[in-house]
Amino acid sequence: MKKLINSPADVLTESLAGFAAAHADLVELSTDPVFVRRRTLSPGKVAIISGGGSGHEPLHAGFVGQGMLDAACPGQVFTSPTPDQMIAAAQAVDQGAGVLFVVKNYEGDKMNFEMAAEMAADIVAGGTATVMTDDDVAVEKSTWSIGRRGVAGTMVVEKIVGAAAEEGLGLEDLAALGRRVNAATRSMGIALTSCTVPAAGTPTFTLAEDEMEMGVGIHGEPGRRRVKVMTADAIAEEMVAAITGDFATAAGAGGGAVEAQADAGTTPDEGAVLLLVNGFGGTPLMELYLMYHAARTRLEARGYHVTRSLVGNFVTSLEMAGCSLTVTRLDAETTRLWDAPVRTAGLRWGV
Amino acid sequence: MKKLINSPADVLTESLAGFAAAHADLVELSTDPVFVRRRTLSPGKVAIISGGGSGHEPLHAGFVGQGMLDAACPGQVFTSPTPDQMIAAAQAVDQGAGVLFVVKNYEGDKMNFEMAAEMAADIVAGGTATVMTDDDVAVEKSTWSIGRRGVAGTMVVEKIVGAAAEEGLGLEDLAALGRRVNAATRSMGIALTSCTVPAAGTPTFTLAEDEMEMGVGIHGEPGRRRVKVMTADAIAEEMVAAITGDFATAAGAGGGAVEAQADAGTTPDEGAVLLLVNGFGGTPLMELYLMYHAARTRLEARGYHVTRSLVGNFVTSLEMAGCSLTVTRLDAETTRLWDAPVRTAGLRWGV
Repeated sequence: MKKLINSPADVLTESLAGFAAAHADLVELSTDPVFVRRRTLSPGKVAIISGGGSGHEPLHAGFVGQGMLDAACPGQVFTSPTPDQMIAAAQAVDQGAGVLFVVKNYEGDKMNFEMAAEMAADIVAGGTATVMTDDDVAVEKSTWSIGRRGVAGTMVVEKIVGAAAEEGLGLEDLAALGRRVNAATRSMGIALTSCTVPAAGTPTFTLAEDEMEMGVGIHGEPGRRRVKVMTADAIAEEMVAAITGDFATAAGAGGGAVEAQADAGTTPDEGAVLLLVNGFGGTPLMELYLMYHAARTRLEARGYHVTRSLVGNFVTSLEMAGCSLTVTRLDAETTRLWDAPVRTAGLRWGV
Repeated sequence: MKKLINSPADVLTESLAGFAAAHADLVELSTDPVFVRRRTLSPGKVAIISGGGSGHEPLHAGFVGQGMLDAACPGQVFTSPTPDQMIAAAQAVDQGAGVLFVVKNYEGDKMNFEMAAEMAADIVAGGTATVMTDDDVAVEKSTWSIGRRGVAGTMVVEKIVGAAAEEGLGLEDLAALGRRVNAATRSMGIALTSCTVPAAGTPTFTLAEDEMEMGVGIHGEPGRRRVKVMTADAIAEEMVAAITGDFATAAGAGGGAVEAQADAGTTPDEGAVLLLVNGFGGTPLMELYLMYHAARTRLEARGYHVTRSLVGNFVTSLEMAGCSLTVTRLDAETTRLWDAPVRTAGLRWGV
């Protein structure tokens, strides 16, 4: 194992110390229990809290700040944080308007955040609500989750809900908005290489020199199937087909994004989407932009209109080589909230 | 070779097409000859142009936009762009106030940019000037350069000079400022793994499972020596010692940053520095923040005061695992220019 660390046991502590020092203008670090919070809170605002295993940086601590999260609770690498972290974070950032937890759908996170939300409901004045994200179309259940996994689409939910909270939206409306954005979001990923959890010391899985994992999860957990390495175009085609096929199925079943948009009373460009090409940590930016090109042309050939874009390493799996595509159907409201100012370590514009 | 590409010959073209489409609000792409320019130019402003081999993304095209570069000329991976690209870029963005080229010190880039600057001087109304960056303290000459290599400090020069150009500074003053920032900047890098140039198909160099390259260049070219893998603290100690030792030598010789700052007539905090921890493309952000912690504590123990920070993948070497430290001595003027608004694909704040 080659890593820039001192010892596996100290990785999280030392990394968070660096993060908090580098972004002292934005955040404060609590070390016992461990959470990262905004330095400056907005009185009367609903607090948005997320968290999960570490190793996905900048998710989630990198999204703490104006226009996004109020706090993030990091667990050890690929390990859920514990309820005491979430409760302490809720107490620290609660402004009397309630606390919304945004949680990726994995068994450990789900259990711990549900416990925390229940316990915190008696402590924070405005009560709690939870939005579970499950945007990964690759598999219907996995080694880590019952139901679909929450992956890079989680950051889209955090951004849009965070902006709406900044505008003063109430707890229940924010939860409904978060569920609507999650329902309008689909992702799928592939891996060319594995990653190595520091405490494990060996790669999470092995891929032959000519193999890739189609539909991989963000912990290196299995996806749809192991295949021979494909061209960028062929990979993009399979991912875009899976995502748009799933949108079509949801719409045909009376669910999904188009209906959700109509419910919101807006008159959206029906095909407008945000396209996020997310690197898993070990893929050059050059390749991510190449994948963006391949994915965008395929979405547009299917009648989608890419009106917002994001390309980079946002929801990573340590140093895994590979990427995911996330597509979120946008309406006028969610477009405006996506564009709203955000000031965090990992995402920043307008301020 | 596992890469998200279609064919090695098309990597640059397809990647640039994706980049231009993803950031169409900021940039325009010229395909023949190849350069990336700002969509909206500022009348009367000195134009800042950089460029170099691709594979270092977001450098340089990712730094085109308000407050930084006016154009960037990308060559093939790790290959200098050609004078026709630079001349066409100069003609496209020239606003009558002159063109400043910011060039990393490598033989190919130096030769081509010098030729371009000479030829463009007869074409653009306000003339041309060039700033060469050579911030890498690892080696005094290399397989790619005579004299020190220009590495991640180049982006600091581009940011500060770009901000000053936005404020209306003239060509010669900008060139002097760029040289002053370069003289106040030192970098050093290490690699844990190699990278693979798509057209080559095999790793640029090989490292055993227990080896690292101390002082590596951003093309994977050799540094000071091949050593056994060290802890993050030991790596940070050696890099910080090399950088601060070099500052001390420069100051003792009557050159360097402190004198340059005094020349500018400011009264700086003598120990104030920007600390940039730059990932080479294949290292998790968790580890970069851990390295930031290790480097910052060592700088502060030596009397430096880290007043500005940046952590992430900014000047990469494809998917190489490893990182570099860059330290820039700051004064009141360069601090203000660093903080000034910037709106590019790779660096953005304040706007």
